[in-house]
Formats: sequence, C-alpha cells, structure tokens
Amino acid sequence: MSIKFGPDYVRAIAPYQGGRPIAEVAREFGLDEAKIVKLASNENPLGMPESAKQAMAAALADAGRYPDGNGFELKAALTAKYGVPAEWITLGNGSNDILELAAHAFVQPGQSVIYAQYSFAVYPLAAQAVGGRSLVIAAKDFGHDLDAMADAIEADTRLIFVANPNNPTGTFIPGEQIESFLKRVPPEVVVVLDEAYTEFLAPEQQYDSIAWVAKYPNLLVSRSMSKVYGLAGLRIGYGIAQAGITDLLNRIRQPFNVNSLAQAAAIAALNDHAFVQKSAQLNASGYRQLTQAFDELKLRYLPSSGNFVMVKVGDDDGAGARVNLALLKQGVIVRPVGNYGLPQWLRISIGLEEENTIFIAALKKALA
Amino acid sequence: MSIKFGPDYVRAIAPYQGGRPIAEVAREFGLDEAKIVKLASNENPLGMPESAKQAMAAALADAGRYPDGNGFELKAALTAKYGVPAEWITLGNGSNDILELAAHAFVQPGQSVIYAQYSFAVYPLAAQAVGGRSLVIAAKDFGHDLDAMADAIEADTRLIFVANPNNPTGTFIPGEQIESFLKRVPPEVVVVLDEAYTEFLAPEQQYDSIAWVAKYPNLLVSRSMSKVYGLAGLRIGYGIAQAGITDLLNRIRQPFNVNSLAQAAAIAALNDHAFVQKSAQLNASGYRQLTQAFDELKLRYLPSSGNFVMVKVGDDDGAGARVNLALLKQGVIVRPVGNYGLPQWLRISIGLEEENTIFIAALKKALA
Repeated sequence: MSIKFGPDYVRAIAPYQGGRPIAEVAREFGLDEAKIVKLASNENPLGMPESAKQAMAAALADAGRYPDGNGFELKAALTAKYGVPAEWITLGNGSNDILELAAHAFVQPGQSVIYAQYSFAVYPLAAQAVGGRSLVIAAKDFGHDLDAMADAIEADTRLIFVANPNNPTGTFIPGEQIESFLKRVPPEVVVVLDEAYTEFLAPEQQYDSIAWVAKYPNLLVSRSMSKVYGLAGLRIGYGIAQAGITDLLNRIRQPFNVNSLAQAAAIAALNDHAFVQKSAQLNASGYRQLTQAFDELKLRYLPSSGNFVMVKVGDDDGAGARVNLALLKQGVIVRPVGNYGLPQWLRISIGLEEENTIFIAALKKALA
Repeated sequence: MSIKFGPDYVRAIAPYQGGRPIAEVAREFGLDEAKIVKLASNENPLGMPESAKQAMAAALADAGRYPDGNGFELKAALTAKYGVPAEWITLGNGSNDILELAAHAFVQPGQSVIYAQYSFAVYPLAAQAVGGRSLVIAAKDFGHDLDAMADAIEADTRLIFVANPNNPTGTFIPGEQIESFLKRVPPEVVVVLDEAYTEFLAPEQQYDSIAWVAKYPNLLVSRSMSKVYGLAGLRIGYGIAQAGITDLLNRIRQPFNVNSLAQAAAIAALNDHAFVQKSAQLNASGYRQLTQAFDELKLRYLPSSGNFVMVKVGDDDGAGARVNLALLKQGVIVRPVGNYGLPQWLRISIGLEEENTIFIAALKKALA
C-alpha cells in the first residue's frame, strides 16, 4: 500500500481505546460472559431504567422510519427541564458527538485547542481530527489548572475543553472557580464545559451551569445520558449553548445523528427522578465500599466526584498493565490509564455492591 | 450576536432538509397522525423486519452498556456475507456517517471534491463541512456523466462521490461503466460508490462492486440499512474498502458511533433474505402502480432503479412547492426537490399499495 490517503494529521491519529466489551474479554480469556464483572466504562450498574425500556417499546413500531432529525419532543422535554429554548439545544449521538461537533465547527487546521493533562481522551482526538494544534496544560493535583489554562490562550485559540468532574481522575472544580475562568476567556473562544458526570455531584458541590449559558455566548455545556441515566448503548447526549453556537453545531451535525429509540428513551429517563436518585445513592455507597478497601490495602486513590475511582496499584510503570492483566484473567474488566500518562494507576467504575466485592477480592489476588 | 464563531465555510452551510416527520406535519396542519401517508424519505413501507425486532429485544438487557465500538459480531456477519476481512469494514451511524467520514478523512480545506448535479444532498454538505471545494458536474439525462466527472479531476481532487442508483433521480449506471470510470481515476483519489439503494436493482442490473474493492485500493463502497432492510430509525450503514482507507475512517470515527440495538438488528436483517425479497417485490409492484398512474395523468417521470420515483408536476418553477403543499393539506408527505434545482418535480417514495392509492387520489386533487 504505497498510496497515502488523507492529511498527515488524520494519519497520525491513534484511535480511542474504550473499555473492553464483555464478549471480547470472554473470547480472549476463555471465560463465561455471565461471570465477567465490567467496571471499565463508567456505565450505570443498574442498566437502563424501566421507564426508558417502556418508552422504547412504544417507539419500536416506527423504527423503520427515519428519526425526527430535529428532535422536537426530546428538545421539548429538555426545555421543560432546564428552561432554555429549543434553539439552544443540540442533540448528539452521545455527548462524544457534541465534543467532536464543537471541534469541527470552530477549529480550522493549525488553530489551537486547549485542554488539561489527564482530561478526557476524546479532546485530543477531536482536536487532531480537524488538524488543530493541542495546547495541553499541566494538571494541578491531577485536576485542571484553570489559571494556567486561561494564561495559555493564544491569538488563534478557538476552543477550550473543561471537564467537571474530570474523567479519568474524578477531580472537581467548584462552580465559582469555573465562572471566574469564563470571565477571563475572550468572547471569541468557545468553552466546552463537559459535564458528563454532573449528576453524581454531592448536593454541596452542585452549581448552575445552565444559568451561565445565558450570560456567556461562548459557553457550550455538554451533558451525557450514558452515565447516571443508563443509556450508554443507545447513544444520546446534548449540548446547551446560545443560538450563535447552537446554530453552527446543527449545520454540521449529521441530519439523523440521534436514533429514534434513543430519543424516546431519553425523554423517559430525563423525567425518571427516582431512578436518578437511586443511582446516585448506589454510587455513593459503592464509592465508600471501594475507598475503604483501598484504605485497608494501603493503596493511594484520588478523591472522586464521578462514578469511578482512580487507584494507584504500584510504583513502577508496568504496574497498571500488570494488575489489569491479572484482573482480566479473573474476569474483572477495569480501565488501564497508561494512555493518559498514568501507567501506575487503574480507573475503577463503581459497580453494584456484589460487583465491587468481586473486584476487591480479585484485586487482592492480583496484588499478591 | 456580534461575535462570529467558526470558519466561513461552516457558517455558509445550509442544513440538510429531510423528509418531514409525520408528527411535525400533523402538528402544523392539524391532522390525525394515524391517517398521514409518508412517502418522503425512501423508507421501507413494511417497516422493520420481525427478525430485527426480536434481535433488538434480546439486546435490550445490555443497552445500559456502551456498544461494542469495534462491532465484532456485525462485522463477522458482513464478512460471512461478502467474503471481505473485518479490516475492510467501517460501521457507520447510517451510511450518512460513512459519507461524512470520507470527507473528514480525505479532504483538507481548499481541496476539491467531485460529484454530479442532482446527486444526493449530503455530498455538498459533507464537502462544505470540511472546507472542500465542490466541483459539481452537469448531469446527463438527470444522471451521472462519468466521462465528464473523470475529465474534471484536478491535481488537488481528493474525493469523488458516485451514487448508483442515484437519489433523488433514480438513475442507474451499468456496472461496466463504473469499472471503466474506476480505471480512469488516479490511485490517490478516493471514489465513494454510494449504493444505498443497490438491493432494489433488477437482476439484470446487478453487478459485483465488492469484487472491485479488491482491485481498487481507492474505492470505498457505501451501503445503507435504512432502505430495503427497514432500519432507518436505528441508524446503521457500512463502508467496504481495503485496509488503507478503512484504517483512516476508523481513526476518525466516533468510538461508539453505532448503537447496540442497531448492531443487533442489523445482524438479523442482513440474514433475513425472505424480508429483503418481499420488500423488493413490493417495491417493483408499487413502481408499476405509481408509473401507470403517472402515465394516465400524462405526467412525465424518470425511470427509477430505486424505491422512489421523480415526477414532474408542472411547467412553472412554483409547481413542486404548490403541489407539495396541496398534498400536505391532504395528509400526504412527499419530497419537494427544489433544493436540488428541480422545482417542477416531486420525489415520491414507493409505499404500500394502499398508501400509493391514497397518494394518487390526493395528487389528482392537488393537480385539479
């Protein structure tokens, strides 16, 4: 194959490494799928809410038709929930779609994009796919250094990604610090505030980012329905921004980017407060369960505001991969984060109590 | 809003105008949804196959998990069907995704993209979204002029879209003409052969484009499961090309671009030969029904190899919009094609026999 297709910046992309699917691990290690515990992709261990399943069943009759490309009913549900007009809403094929749309809409080859070290792996991918120049700002205590990020803005900076809480480190930035940052960003630079895990915040951490959208025309708040809402397999997320940004995102969005069943399920899940509350409680108790075990094992971990915890499993740079393999052989899938530059750590998604228990036992064996 | 975000070429995009959803038309015209006939989006009037519904029901239990981002099982089904390795397959969120991925992977701002006048509206959108320069080649008898398209290739041409059959005109290019064209295209120029409607071809029209993939490293065959397979609402399509092209598409593809239910449904539908055969037969008889009516009404139509027919509803440039509105008021949704530069025409998707009958009666009224 001597012909090289595509720009250099596309050929240089290393594809995203997601959590490994259960079926794939079962095939590779000769395990029984039903016995595998997957704590690798920050999914809701309760699965989809029943309300969403019922809504999907009703939508199934029309699944031979194209989806509503404008998402009328789902936008109406979001309007009712957040008090923003439909013209401020972009629906995405997962919030990953929103992140990539932002890069495509606002960044030309050579222009710069800012994000933090140890922040979500899709930011560099999205920047690179459009030939953007990444300015990666050193983390402070594994989280965002917002002052340094603001200082790093250059004349050609078009986009900044801020994750709160951050994945994979779980770090949290108080709301007032984010608003101080927004005040410092020039109005022509778009800020994507990625809040995929915001529903897991403790009451005292919560802040109103949607209210900021009305004040900052360059702010795009991104939300996922793959996490607390349990719809990861359906692919649905959304962005909220003023019409100036939203109009551009909708111009380059694929016309039917969100499938019909996801739209129907999302409406039900958004209004299923009992499910969200139950999920957040389960997460809080699972967090205590995991971190107590880490304390007992004298393992360092990072305080997390998400539905996952980063734990340091050794002092050498082979530790993460070694312990990960030992866990896989026992049928437990977690996430190595060597690709984030954290080869001594693993990221553990918080599971059901019995899943956490299996993981802890497997971890003890793996470390022994 | 004085701040302008994004490159000029993004701000200049006019969003895709899809077929109008039934619910939207019902709201606007105060009609009963159940009585509306939609012949606007080239969907399968039989809806989803039962086999796909059953496969989805089985997949629902895991829909809280992320989809398999590598699509292992669906690729295995495609491998079995077409005899190509998994490394030659790209899964898309609809074949629309494949078309846009090709533009993103191969075209930089300023480079040229070739497609035919009156060909699918997503080609100019995909080109424009990456700042490509469109070379639109005049149609010959409403179809592709492949000789003129080959002659138009410039030094900076990176991508050519060829639709066969073409949407919205339904025109067909015999296989041997396409292969002659492929022989003329320089090896560094990628040809997307968009075969969204290929399953509707008459036996004597069929040709083996997958075999060409092995011969032409610059050929990407794009297929949809939204048409004969009845999965439009789920969003699933695929591209087949040698590893050189496929590797790049998979680098810029969103990691979880195809939802779990679509993957499960697609495997079932691909192997549901009875459903495909029934759908193709229904389409052939519906085509006879519509074109006989057009003959009786002395309306010109274009012979179509797809599941739709273009019909000329008047000699003035207001005809298409006028007749379309008169049909909408009667609860019949078809597709105006003024945005294709064909304001005197309408595109009619072939429906069930009773839907076609309702449309024909409504058309007579609309023309009266």
